[in-house]
This record gives sequence, structure tokens and C-alpha cells, in this order.
Amino acid sequence: MQVEIKAPYLLFLGDEPDPTHAKTAIGIVYWRREFCVAQMRLPGCGADLGIPDMTPAQAANAGVRTMIWGVAGVGGLIPPTWIDNLFTAVDAGLDIVAGTHASLTKIPGLADAAAKAGVSLIDIRQPPADLPVGTGEKRSGLRLLTVGTDCVVGKKYTALSIAREMQSRDIKCDFRATGQTGIMIAGGGIPIDAVVSDFVSGAAEMLSPENDTDHWDIVEGQGSLFHPGYAAVTLGLMHGSQPDAFVVCHAADRVRIEAFPDFPLPSIAELIAQTVSNGRLTNPDIRCVGVSINTSGLTTGERDIYLSRLAAEIGLPCIDPVATSVAPLVDHIVDTFQ
Amino acid sequence: MQVEIKAPYLLFLGDEPDPTHAKTAIGIVYWRREFCVAQMRLPGCGADLGIPDMTPAQAANAGVRTMIWGVAGVGGLIPPTWIDNLFTAVDAGLDIVAGTHASLTKIPGLADAAAKAGVSLIDIRQPPADLPVGTGEKRSGLRLLTVGTDCVVGKKYTALSIAREMQSRDIKCDFRATGQTGIMIAGGGIPIDAVVSDFVSGAAEMLSPENDTDHWDIVEGQGSLFHPGYAAVTLGLMHGSQPDAFVVCHAADRVRIEAFPDFPLPSIAELIAQTVSNGRLTNPDIRCVGVSINTSGLTTGERDIYLSRLAAEIGLPCIDPVATSVAPLVDHIVDTFQ
Repeated sequence: MQVEIKAPYLLFLGDEPDPTHAKTAIGIVYWRREFCVAQMRLPGCGADLGIPDMTPAQAANAGVRTMIWGVAGVGGLIPPTWIDNLFTAVDAGLDIVAGTHASLTKIPGLADAAAKAGVSLIDIRQPPADLPVGTGEKRSGLRLLTVGTDCVVGKKYTALSIAREMQSRDIKCDFRATGQTGIMIAGGGIPIDAVVSDFVSGAAEMLSPENDTDHWDIVEGQGSLFHPGYAAVTLGLMHGSQPDAFVVCHAADRVRIEAFPDFPLPSIAELIAQTVSNGRLTNPDIRCVGVSINTSGLTTGERDIYLSRLAAEIGLPCIDPVATSVAPLVDHIVDTFQ
Repeated sequence: MQVEIKAPYLLFLGDEPDPTHAKTAIGIVYWRREFCVAQMRLPGCGADLGIPDMTPAQAANAGVRTMIWGVAGVGGLIPPTWIDNLFTAVDAGLDIVAGTHASLTKIPGLADAAAKAGVSLIDIRQPPADLPVGTGEKRSGLRLLTVGTDCVVGKKYTALSIAREMQSRDIKCDFRATGQTGIMIAGGGIPIDAVVSDFVSGAAEMLSPENDTDHWDIVEGQGSLFHPGYAAVTLGLMHGSQPDAFVVCHAADRVRIEAFPDFPLPSIAELIAQTVSNGRLTNPDIRCVGVSINTSGLTTGERDIYLSRLAAEIGLPCIDPVATSVAPLVDHIVDTFQ
């Protein structure tokens, strides 16, 4: 069983004064506007998602099934002023989904209130129980994994962009989420970095089950094979996903692993080679289908030069999913796998 | 904090009729005879460790501090006839260490009895709380990791043999345990496969902390980079251990990953290359120092040919830690790192 979230959503922003702290909620509205019926803001809230304001009761009347807790309190703590509203949401019949470090079930009385109301408190960091060990058995269907030179280089954004582009072309596909924000956007998934290491590849197998032979699972990557802290997560996710195709994600102005100054980033070519070398264990036909670069640190002129030089070097489409488009990547995927 | 076990031990064998099921206890006595004061056997027990039989009270009087539960019940269940003896041990003032699937703290009343007696119930599968993310920072001291073509190819046995040989030569070293039996033998360690994937390399860093520049940590390997279920564990353990040296372990008659018939084993040369390729992320000087083969499936003549051919091919000492000796490995390590 994966984590599952019932749409549509009421997005709770609390009294968060800093709009940039509402990144998760902004992402959900951006990628899944159809899931987002309303926002709930307390006095002092500095964020605005541009959707109607509702109370939990109003949202429930409008068909909402889940209140998404879309901001993090400082240090992961739950501000006392928010807690009343969690009870109000439960009483209105809404599930509550949270990804913060303070567990919903530890708020005194909330679990009882939820049980009485027949609703669920969902901690999105909690992986499913009883995950299997990976089997390595080949599954039908096609899979694409985004891999990165580092964390926070656009793996989720790239995967979502590719899935959206494929859907616009009527290619059968699903975005498969492996992190908290991705799970809220997808309405389900597995928080792969919270899985016990023995079961990481098994969890990844469960996340992208067998499917139609022309169906693509677009799997959100995590970490990096070149990250001294998180490479184990990356490898297990790759072995379980058995990707037929992978897209390398990178930030153009990044030269070192973020917060690990002793670790220079690999070159794109090195990352491709290492990904193929490790990935062929569970899919001998694994191949790179392109590179997705966050070029927001470059000028437009620099970006064009950067992407065209890289494309010449690698011999594959190199794009910026925001500034240009993932269409050339999807063109190449279609050409390669038709 | 690592798991820590207070020596010496009383080894509990229950009424296990099959001596081969007492493998863990046999291993503890073989490697740490000095930890093993006595065994406790119930009527019908078919195993005999060749050490005195004592009750928990007698053992406590003889200085024993911990009762080790050295056999697994069928399906991990605790036979009802054993439970009384767990209470008897607690009342005698002994900690209890268990690695079975049934948790000690779920036995009704046992946790209360342990609290009252001031003793600990230690589930050896439970990793420490609040493990850090790996930093990749270089630590002083030398480290050797055993790696395998598969699970159950002698990684623990080889590591223990090397540590024993080093100790006999007055080389400063510690065996670092990463699995249940290893932890009971070492008196401490971290069950690395039970660690959440985000923290595997951090746990491995904690397991082999900085040390004298001429001190060796001999780290028990887990899984295999070529195992479709467990490679994530292997990689995280390697990145955190930052091994200066590794020894490849293999079973001569194994051709496929055990229980994964679609996965042929890598060659020794392939495993060396893949280990260096991934391991140099956190230790650019990582190198293979030899190969340890379980040749029990071969005749003596076959073994000699197998080991000498392999040594010629690899250009490194190739030994069987049981049938021959790890001494040539340790000779090579001394030559290489002095």
C-alpha cells in the first residue's frame, strides 16, 4: 500500500507571514489546480494562493475531502494557534495530511477526535508498513527516472513537466512521487527516504507496478549517486524503478554538493556513466534520454550557449524545463521507444 | 549511540531440538569464548555449546550480566515454554538481548518486570534513534570493509578472521558489527539494514569513528552492490565507512544471487571495479587488498587450483579463511599501508 490522499483539498496556510514558506502549497496549486478548491488563512498570513478562502465547514460543503497542511512551523513545531483549526477540520469531516516533523497523532485529543469523526490523520513522512524486499523481477510497462548531480536540482519539477507533456500528447503515463511535496501533488506515493534501507528497492518496485507495455511511469528521483549522505536512497530507488530511461537534472551554477563543500559535483557525462553502470543491474537496457538544467542563475545568452554546448557534448536533448520546454526530451523519448 | 551489550553472557538455547538452529550461539562461543560463561538449555534441547549449564540465578552469581537469546523460534514466535525463563532471567538481574522477530517488549508484563529489576530488554534489530545524515568528512584511522558478490558468502567471518589475525600481530584494530550475530559477537554495533535509508551512511560513520592513524576498523559488510534487493544498504555502508581497503568475499560454487535466479553473480574483477567506482566518492584511495573465498563446495585439489588461478588473475592474495588462512591478506595489508 502506498500513502493515499483523497482529493480535492483545502490548503491550510496558518498565520505564516512569509509567502516563500508556502512553497509546498504553491507547488500543489501549480501542478494540480483541479485538486485545490480553497485555501484557509489565519490573521497575519502573508501568503495567497489565488484561490477562494474557506473554513473547513465551507470546504466540506464544497466537496473537499482533505485539509493539506501546506506550511511548516518554525523548527517543525505546530503553532498553538493552528491546533484549534485542526480540530475544526476534523469535526467538519476532513482528513488531515501533514508532512511536518511534529506528528499529528501526538497532538493531545486529535487522534480521538479523528476516530470519532471517521477521518484520517495522514503523516506523509510515514512509509507503508510491511514493505517487501526488492525482487528485481522485470515488470511490463516503461519507466523513466529523474536523477541528479545533487539534491534540489529539479528532479521533481522535471518529472512533473515530462508527465504533463506526455499527457498533452495522449501518451499513457503517471507521475510517481517519492517525496513529501510530490506525494501531495500526485495524491499518493511513497516517501522513499523514510524507508528502512533493506526495503528501498522493494518500495520502488511497489511504487511503479506492472502496467500496459506502452505506459510510462515518470518516477521522481531522490538524492544523487554522488551525494555522500543520500546515495543509498538514490541507488535503491533506481534498482527498484528499473528505469528504461533516465533524465539527468542539474543546476547550471552549482559546482559542489550543497552543504558538502568537500564534494565537487560530477560532470554530466560522469553521472550518466555511473547511472548506467549501476542501473543496468535491474535493467540492462537503461539509457539516458536527455538533460534538464536549471539555468536560472544564467543570463538568456549564457543559457543558450550552455545548453547548446552541452547538447553537442552529450549528443542528447538538453533543456531547461522552466525557461525552455521539456518537449525536445519527450520527442526524443517517443523516437527512441516507439 | 550504538547498540551496546554488557558481557559476559548466558546463552539461552531453549528447547531447540535442532543443533543447527543454534548457529548464532555457536558463533558467539567460537569468536568470543571469553564472553560466554554458561548456556541454559530446557528439556529436549538438542544443542550443546560445550560450556557449563547454569540457571539465570547461577549465572548472575558467576558474574554474567546478559542473557543472550541465541536461537530463533519457528516463524520468529516465542515458544510459551521460554517465556517463564525470560522473567526468571530478568528477576535474576540480567539484561536480555534478542534478535528474533517477536519483540521482547511485547511480551505482556516483561517490560514492567525489567524496569522493576533495573535491567534492559535489548532488541538487537533496533537501530539507535536520531542517527545523523552522513557528512562524508574524512576521519583519521584506517578502515577495511568486506564486500561480497552476494549475501551469505563469508563477509562477517572474513572480517572477524582479519581482526583476530591483526590482534595476534599487535596491530591496533576493532571489528565493527553491522548485523545481529556480529553485534552479539562484538558486544555492540549497528544493525545497518534496519536503518532508514537517509541515515545509512551516517550510521556507518558513527560505527567507525575517528581513531589513531595506525588503527584499523574492520567493518562487517552487508549485501552486495550486485544484489537487486540490498544494494542500497551496501552502498550506504560503504560511503559511510570510507574504506581504505576492501576484501571481496565469494562462495566458489555460487553462480547466481541466492534466491534471485535471474541475477548471475558478477565476476570478482567486476565487483572490484564497481566497488572502487562507487567507493572513491568518500575515499579516493580505496583499493582492493585481497579476496576471501568459501571453497567448502570444492575438493582440496580443486581449491588449490581455484585460489591460485584467481590470485594470478587478480594479482592479489586469494584465500579461504577457514581452509587456509587470512594471514596472506594481512601480510599484504601491512605491506601496503605501513
